[in-house]
This record gives sequence, structure tokens and C-alpha cells, in this order.
Amino acid sequence: MTEYIEPLQRLADKFRKLDGIGAKTAVRLAFCVMNFSEEEVRDFADALIAAKTDINLCECCQNITTDTLCNICRSDDRDESVICVVEDPRAVIAFEKMHGYRGVYHVLHGAISPMRRIGPDQLKIKELMARIEEGGVGEVILATNSTVEGEATAMYLSRQIAPYGVKISRIANGVPVGGDLEYTDEITLKRALEGRYDMN
Amino acid sequence: MTEYIEPLQRLADKFRKLDGIGAKTAVRLAFCVMNFSEEEVRDFADALIAAKTDINLCECCQNITTDTLCNICRSDDRDESVICVVEDPRAVIAFEKMHGYRGVYHVLHGAISPMRRIGPDQLKIKELMARIEEGGVGEVILATNSTVEGEATAMYLSRQIAPYGVKISRIANGVPVGGDLEYTDEITLKRALEGRYDMN
Repeated sequence: MTEYIEPLQRLADKFRKLDGIGAKTAVRLAFCVMNFSEEEVRDFADALIAAKTDINLCECCQNITTDTLCNICRSDDRDESVICVVEDPRAVIAFEKMHGYRGVYHVLHGAISPMRRIGPDQLKIKELMARIEEGGVGEVILATNSTVEGEATAMYLSRQIAPYGVKISRIANGVPVGGDLEYTDEITLKRALEGRYDMN
Repeated sequence: MTEYIEPLQRLADKFRKLDGIGAKTAVRLAFCVMNFSEEEVRDFADALIAAKTDINLCECCQNITTDTLCNICRSDDRDESVICVVEDPRAVIAFEKMHGYRGVYHVLHGAISPMRRIGPDQLKIKELMARIEEGGVGEVILATNSTVEGEATAMYLSRQIAPYGVKISRIANGVPVGGDLEYTDEITLKRALEGRYDMN
């Protein structure tokens, strides 16, 4: 016998499938839904389905969009000769918040990870290579995460792109702005030192 | 302009309505749903609606149930002369996990709280009084939470029930089992001392 009545347990099981939601939180959230009005619950259910059915990937950069092309690819204002390659749509948002980048993006939707059995074929690498092959690309900025998987993916991509004679760059490692040296790990500090720049 | 595309932001807004889910977590959960299969998303949406439409309150004790009466009220095995009054269906589950209580319950669905504008009329107190008026009740155990609201509710109920000549008890305060005296707050310790029992 389950501890909770079936519809409650069933909903809690669904919440548990979400990243970072444990068994106790899942039950708490399910109880919370019970206190919503019927209209609110129907809205929630509709929003769930809409998030799945109304969102697709931009034909060009593979970022999420509700159209064929995303806002950035559609814009006349962006420099299409610079492609910033990221793992995730959230990274695009992080870059856009910076308000300083005028190039375009390419979203891989993951990183190469033998541990999780994710190879290059599961990522949107084919689509990136097609954009480069098409020509007009002057620089590819590899902005995958600074993790083992992100570095491996950057390495893999740089080898793939090299034959096209396109400039390839990787975002810098270093001490985060506002960061305290005392709390900066050794590898970051080593990279920050290696990447030091001239102040004269 | 919202930072995220509309269907994603809309779903994140729904997640945010859940207790303890902040803006960042809500977006993370919405992204998570996007990676579900369409079938999983539909199951999730159905579970949400089912949790609202298939769950109702037990006609007798007001606990949540999928039937007219809950399992406990329907059971022949329980002592109906002892009613344990709790704030929340989760408290019933906590008591049931103890495996030592053979009486029945009454769920108030909240506690009196002038701050949150919850008065006795918003709680299932009428239904409790009806059960007591019907007769056959020997003891009412007030097991509302040990919070200001819970204590106020217990106090209110004890005054309401007193005229019926029913035994009224309140669950004990004290040091939690396994608890360290060093980390026990003063009020709990005071109550534990007041409630000390004879060991001879």
C-alpha cells in the first residue's frame, strides 16, 4: 500500500522526475497543487503541454523558439560571421544579458560525455558544420562549459573546424569578477595566471 | 520583452506558484519538462488534473480521499471514540507511520491565524463539533502543530469542546527523541522540564 492516496502519489511521482526534486519535495508540491483552484490546475496542465508542443528548435542555430527561426537569427542587427557555440539555451540567455555580443549562436544541446554515453552524433554538431561549410563564417567562439565534458567538446569541435580555415577561439578561464582569490580553486588560479595580460 | 520564450516563461510562472519554488528553480524545472517525451508531459498534465478532480474530503474526518469515506473512517478496526485533531492530511500520515494509534482523526485543514485572516469558520471545526454532538466520543486529542497558530487553535477548540464533557488532551512538548539538549531551544526545554515524569 502506498502511503498517500493514488492521485496524490501519482502527481508526486511526476514531480520527482524533475531535476533536483526529491521524494519529500515532490509530495509537498503535490499537496500544494491540491490547494490550487481547478482553473489554476488546468492552466498549469495546459502550460506543461504548450511548453512541449509549442517550442521547437531554430532551423539555423538550434536554440529554442516558437517559430522556424529564433529572434536572434531573424534579426538584421547581428553579425552572422561570428558564431558563439554553447551547450544550452540558458547559456544564450546568459550571453544576451551581457548586452555586449553582436554575433550569433549555435546551441549544441549538451556536451560530449562518454560516461553518459553522449557522443558527437547526439549533439547538434552536424548542423554547426553545415553552417561553417556554407561559408561566410569568420570566427567560431567555443563557449561550452568549463567542465571536463565542455572542454572535451571544445577540443573535438576545434579539430573538426580547423580544416575550414576559420578563426577558432575559446572563452577565457580566470578569477570571476568580484571573486576572492582565497576562495578560488588552484586550477582556476593557474589558468588566470597563464592568461594574464599586459597592463602597461 | 521577457527573457525566455513565452511557453517556457508561462510554464515557469506556474511552477513558481508552488510553495518554496523560486524564479530560478521554476525556470530550471520548465527546461526540464522540455526534455521530457510528449507522452511523459501528457501524463504529467493528466496527473495534475487528477490530483484536483479525483481527490475529495472524507465526509466524516475531512481527510483527503478518493471515496466518500477515507480508509481509516471505513475501517472496522479503529476506535471511533477517540478523535485526534490535526491541521493537515500530512499529520495523519505522520501518525499512521507510528503504527501505535488506533483511534480516528479529524483534519482541520489549517489553523486559526489572524495574520493570514484565517478564522474558525474557514477550518473544518463545524464538522468536528457535529461529530462530538452526535455522541460516542470519549476523548479528543488536540494534535495541532506546536506553533503560535496551532496552540491558539488548540486553545479555541478546548473551549468549544469543554461543554460536552468530553476528555480533551494535548500532545506533549519536549526534547525530540535523539535530540541533543545543547541544541534544544529554551521554550522546548522549559516544557520538557514541566512535563517531567516519575521514574520510581
